[in-house]
Amino acid sequence: MSAKISPLAPTAFPELPDIGGVTFSTGEAGIKYSGRADVLLANFRPGTKVAGVFTKSKCPSAPVDWCKSILKRGTARGLLVNSGNANAFTGKKGADAVALSARIAAKALGCLDEEVLLASTGVIGEPLPADKFSSVIDDLVAADKPATWLEAARAIMTTDTYPKIATANVDLDGQKITINGIAKGAGMIAPDMATMLSFIFTDADISSHVMQTLLSERVEGSFNAITVDSDTSTSDTVLLFSTGSAAEKGIAPINEMDDPRIDVVRSALGDVMSDLAHQIVKDGEGARKFVQIEVEDAESDVSAKRIALSIANSPLVKTAIAGEDANWGRVVMAVGKAGERADRDSLSIWFGDVRVAFQGERDPCYSEEATSAIMKAENITLRVNLGLGTGQATVWTCDLTKEYVEINGDYRS
Amino acid sequence: MSAKISPLAPTAFPELPDIGGVTFSTGEAGIKYSGRADVLLANFRPGTKVAGVFTKSKCPSAPVDWCKSILKRGTARGLLVNSGNANAFTGKKGADAVALSARIAAKALGCLDEEVLLASTGVIGEPLPADKFSSVIDDLVAADKPATWLEAARAIMTTDTYPKIATANVDLDGQKITINGIAKGAGMIAPDMATMLSFIFTDADISSHVMQTLLSERVEGSFNAITVDSDTSTSDTVLLFSTGSAAEKGIAPINEMDDPRIDVVRSALGDVMSDLAHQIVKDGEGARKFVQIEVEDAESDVSAKRIALSIANSPLVKTAIAGEDANWGRVVMAVGKAGERADRDSLSIWFGDVRVAFQGERDPCYSEEATSAIMKAENITLRVNLGLGTGQATVWTCDLTKEYVEINGDYRS
Repeated sequence: MSAKISPLAPTAFPELPDIGGVTFSTGEAGIKYSGRADVLLANFRPGTKVAGVFTKSKCPSAPVDWCKSILKRGTARGLLVNSGNANAFTGKKGADAVALSARIAAKALGCLDEEVLLASTGVIGEPLPADKFSSVIDDLVAADKPATWLEAARAIMTTDTYPKIATANVDLDGQKITINGIAKGAGMIAPDMATMLSFIFTDADISSHVMQTLLSERVEGSFNAITVDSDTSTSDTVLLFSTGSAAEKGIAPINEMDDPRIDVVRSALGDVMSDLAHQIVKDGEGARKFVQIEVEDAESDVSAKRIALSIANSPLVKTAIAGEDANWGRVVMAVGKAGERADRDSLSIWFGDVRVAFQGERDPCYSEEATSAIMKAENITLRVNLGLGTGQATVWTCDLTKEYVEINGDYRS
Repeated sequence: MSAKISPLAPTAFPELPDIGGVTFSTGEAGIKYSGRADVLLANFRPGTKVAGVFTKSKCPSAPVDWCKSILKRGTARGLLVNSGNANAFTGKKGADAVALSARIAAKALGCLDEEVLLASTGVIGEPLPADKFSSVIDDLVAADKPATWLEAARAIMTTDTYPKIATANVDLDGQKITINGIAKGAGMIAPDMATMLSFIFTDADISSHVMQTLLSERVEGSFNAITVDSDTSTSDTVLLFSTGSAAEKGIAPINEMDDPRIDVVRSALGDVMSDLAHQIVKDGEGARKFVQIEVEDAESDVSAKRIALSIANSPLVKTAIAGEDANWGRVVMAVGKAGERADRDSLSIWFGDVRVAFQGERDPCYSEEATSAIMKAENITLRVNLGLGTGQATVWTCDLTKEYVEINGDYRS
C-alpha cells in the first residue's frame, strides 16, 4: 500500500447498496503487514452459487488450485482473502496451508471446507502462516457490524493506492437487482489476467452454469484487455457470487442462457467488470496516464488484440507517453513486432483525434503542436487502422514511469 | 549519444588489425546530430561478397527493403550508414531516399547502385534528407587517411554510450585470416533482432552462400539471444562482408559448407557476433547489470528459449535486479506466463551458484544473505531447471532502471 495515491484515482467513491445474503468482515491477521486489515471474510447465505475465472499461468498459486478444484460444486458459503502473501510456489506447504485455511473458515461458518473459496495476494514463495487465521476467524464471523464495501476492498490491497469498487443495477421482473464488485491490482497486470483479484456479488438468483458463461465471456473485454507491465500473475482470480436473495422479492431465477433477461444482466455485469478493470490500470504502479488503444481494420479480432497488446506492452511506447512525447514511430515499431499481418503502406495512426500517420508515412497535415497538446492530457487514446480487414480490439494500459521502477526495485525487501 | 558512459562498458578496446580490401571513412552530414560524425562509408575492393540477416518486423525500414532486394547479387562495393534518422515508415519518400543514397555513393565509388548496401538508424517517421550525402560523399571516398575501426563504430552510434568493436583470428592453410566486427544498439533491442546494426568483415574469401548459412546459424545464439526491452526495431541489420584479399596469401576460397575449414571459421564468427551482442546488452539504456539467463531441462530448445526470453523481458524481474533484490518469485511468475510446458513442482532456480528454489518451493537451505551478495555483482546469472526434458537455451539481458525511463521519455523531443 503506497503512501502516494495515484493521480488517476477516482475523486469520489460510489455508494454501494447492500446485497442481501452476503456480509463482510475484515481483520488484522498480521500475515505480513501490521497496523492494517489484511484479511477479508465474506459470509454467504446457504444456497449462494459461484463461478470463477483464473490465471493461465503454468505455475498457479495454491489458492488458485484450491478454487479450481472446488468450483465444480458451484456453491459457496465463505470467501477468505488475505493480502501480503500469495501462497504461490510454496509446494506441499502451500497445499497444506489452503487446506488449513478452508478448515478454519468452514468450522467458524458451519459449512463444508469445500464451500470456502480462497484467494491470496502478495509475495511469491514464502510459506503462508495459515494458522494466523485461527486467531481472527471467530471475530470475523461474529463481527457485530458488517464491513463496508470500501473496507472490504481496502483489506485486499497490496501496492494498490486506492480501493476499487463498482456497482450496477438491473431491473428484472419489475424489481431491482444489484451487482457490486471489488478488485485489487496494480502491478503484474497482464492478460491473461495479471495479479488481480476481483470478487463480484449479486442478489439475483443465477445458476452457476449461466454465471460461468457470462463471466468467461465478459472477461475478454475487461480484465483480459488490460495490461500494466505484461507480467501475468500466478494468483489471478475473478469470482462471481449470486446469493439469490432477490428471489424473496419475487424475481425468478435465471437458469438458462436463453432467458430473455440475460442481455441486461450481461450488460450490467460487463459494466462492473470494465469499471473495475479500468480502475486497476489507473492504479498501475507509477501510472500518470490512462491509455486506451484501439486497433481497427485488422485481419481478425484476434490479430487486432495481439497488435493492441504489443503496443500496450511496449516499454518504448509507454516511456514516450510518460514523457508526453507523441512518438508515433514507436507505435509503428510495436505494430511491426507483433508478428501479425500488417502492411506498412496501408497503416494509419491517430493520437486522440489527430491523425499523425496516413498510409505508411507521416500525415501531410501533421501538427507537432496539436499532437503535443493531446499528450499532456491524463486520458490518451491511440488508434491504429491496419487497412486490411474488419478485425478490431480495444485494450487499456498506463504509462511507464520512473516510479514503476522505484516501486518494483524494492517491493520485496 | 549519451554523456554518461555505461558502467558496464569495456575498460579497454581491443586493437583491430586492418582487413585488406576494405577502408572506412566517416563524415558529418548533419542528418540530425551536429558536431559529430553521423555517416560511415565502407569502400570495398571489387569481388567483395556479402550476406545479411534483417529484422522480422512487418514494418521494416526502407534501407532494409533495399538491402534485401539487392542481396541476392551477393556482391558489395560500398556500405553507407547514417545515424540520426532510421528512414523507416517514410513511405514513397523513403524508397526515393534509399535510391538517391545508393546513386550518390555508387557514382562516387564507380560501381553499380545495386552494389551499395545501406543502413540507417535513429528516429522513425521523419523523411531522410538523402541529398545531404552529396555534400560529403566525395570527401568520404577521397579521404587520404582511412578511419579507424573505433571511428567507424562511433559514427553509427545513437543512444549508445560507447562504440562496439570485436575481432578474432583464424589459421587457414597455415596463414592467418581476420574477422572484425562493429555494432551499434542500446534500446529497442529484442529478438528478432532489435535496433541494432552490425557489420562484420573478413579478408577470407568465402562465398556469399556459405556466409549466409553461417550468419543465419550463428545469429540465433548471439544477436537473437539478447534483449534490452523486448522492443524489436524496424531497422535491424547484420551484414557480413568477405573481401577475399587473403587469397593473395595463398588461402583458398571457401565455397562449400563441407569445406573442412568451416568449423574454425564458424566458431570465430560466432565469437565475434556474441562479443558484439553482449556489448550491446551492456550498453542497454540505463543498464547497470549484465544478466545471463540459462534455462535447462525444458521440453525442447525452442521452449527453453521462449521461457528464457519471458524471464529476460519481464519488467518485474528486471526492476528487481535493478534493486539488487533476489526476488525469485518473479522468476517463477515469468516461467508461468511464458505459455510453455512447466511443472511448478519440478522447477528449481539458482541465482549465481545459490539454489534459491528446489522442486516447487523455496530451497530449504535458502540464505537471504548469500543471495543478496550475488545480486550486488555487475554480472548475474539466473539458472532455471524445468526438470522436464533436455531442452536448453541461454539469453542475455540487463536490468530495468529509472535511467531507462528517463532516456526513453525524452529521446525524440
